[in-house]
Amino acid sequence: MHILVTNDDGVQAPGLLALAQEMRQLGKVTVLAPERNWSASGHVKTMDRPLRVREVKLADGTSAFASDGAPSDCVAVAILGFVTEKIDLVVSGINPNANIGHDVTYSGTVTAAMEALISGGVPGIAVSVDGGEAHGAPIDYAASARLARRIAEKVMAKSLPEGVFLNVNVPYLLEEQLKGLMVTRQGLRIYRDKLDRRIDPRGRPYYWIGGEAPTGVPEEGSDFGALKAGYVSITPLQLDLTAYSVIARMKNWKWQKIGN
Amino acid sequence: MHILVTNDDGVQAPGLLALAQEMRQLGKVTVLAPERNWSASGHVKTMDRPLRVREVKLADGTSAFASDGAPSDCVAVAILGFVTEKIDLVVSGINPNANIGHDVTYSGTVTAAMEALISGGVPGIAVSVDGGEAHGAPIDYAASARLARRIAEKVMAKSLPEGVFLNVNVPYLLEEQLKGLMVTRQGLRIYRDKLDRRIDPRGRPYYWIGGEAPTGVPEEGSDFGALKAGYVSITPLQLDLTAYSVIARMKNWKWQKIGN
Repeated sequence: MHILVTNDDGVQAPGLLALAQEMRQLGKVTVLAPERNWSASGHVKTMDRPLRVREVKLADGTSAFASDGAPSDCVAVAILGFVTEKIDLVVSGINPNANIGHDVTYSGTVTAAMEALISGGVPGIAVSVDGGEAHGAPIDYAASARLARRIAEKVMAKSLPEGVFLNVNVPYLLEEQLKGLMVTRQGLRIYRDKLDRRIDPRGRPYYWIGGEAPTGVPEEGSDFGALKAGYVSITPLQLDLTAYSVIARMKNWKWQKIGN
Repeated sequence: MHILVTNDDGVQAPGLLALAQEMRQLGKVTVLAPERNWSASGHVKTMDRPLRVREVKLADGTSAFASDGAPSDCVAVAILGFVTEKIDLVVSGINPNANIGHDVTYSGTVTAAMEALISGGVPGIAVSVDGGEAHGAPIDYAASARLARRIAEKVMAKSLPEGVFLNVNVPYLLEEQLKGLMVTRQGLRIYRDKLDRRIDPRGRPYYWIGGEAPTGVPEEGSDFGALKAGYVSITPLQLDLTAYSVIARMKNWKWQKIGN
């Protein structure tokens, strides 16, 4: 088994190292990740400039590749041929903050797993830990990395249906405090962004997207609900965003003939 | 009615001008769009740097705002308070190429409409014309802009269900050649990306994501199928990516107790 590990925090992030080390217990691991942080940068395909890929060393002395592209670019570049050996699984993370609800389309961690499916039909798993509670202390990724390995093992044994990838979120708890694993639906994120207008030293305005950190609706069965109840959340996501229930209703809207 | 118009090709793109001019027939229009091209840059929330917004003139002499943020940033900044008057509708485009199938999460045009819903619960419509057939000649946006106006009018009259926004694609045909409007599902995009390895003048490799332009599977009832049959495609999209049909199956996967 050959696993590609990437992330959106940059190749030297400790969450990636913890993930790569656990994945090595399942097979061969190749790391190709962005050289810088791409948080909240979404699903990117860089076509207006070429990408560089250089070899780097991780903190444990193992070899990895760093690119000036986005997380999804790293996955595409690897699958399109930079990595010559067949890739069986892409695992992205570990992100130090949860990616739940509407985060999924902004998240570089999640869109990297999405890209695995799009560019190569390769199963993808995004892994995040709800580390906000670390309150500035370095996050311990040991528990979430071990869980990522177990979920990856299960995915390879059972295989995911076509067009489906996984979004995994782990509560920031000791392993013995975790209640278990829960298969969930994407929940509702509540963003509390506020526009923060400031004046620069030359008297001109500039704008921060500020406000409090997002929260969510802790509904039962949802990603956020599972996290808040102490469960590891595993959400199967799909590439099809069609609102099927709305199609029939919209067909009943009376459309005038074009040109009238 | 107050409509925010944005795009991902930059504030001076002719597709935006055509769209803004048609939308003015429905009410007040505010334009806030990126100052540069953000194609295939996905759903972005810029939080690591502040954003600038400056006033510019469009080619018809009307006033508009340009930002150094992504399309989704422009929508968020407007809704979060840069635009003080309530926004009733966000229309994004007109993109000179179709946004179908898996394009939707990469597309700045589509994610701008998505952001309207997320950051303000405002209905959003993304509009693209399948202008690839213009073969380098300037694209005529007249027909697609008129259609965008008619669809916007319908959306305001009927209102969209919660959590739903629209992705509109118009074939590049004369108005009298269009077969009609079709409510569709998101289809299957086929990317034909190839990694193009080159050597720079200093002997170091760099990589283009190259290959042929994407195509699609022209299935009946899908966005691509409608376009290829000469219909305007209107796809209702949702923010929920959960693969519901997979949840039950995954619950049957036997998960070992954590810590074992």
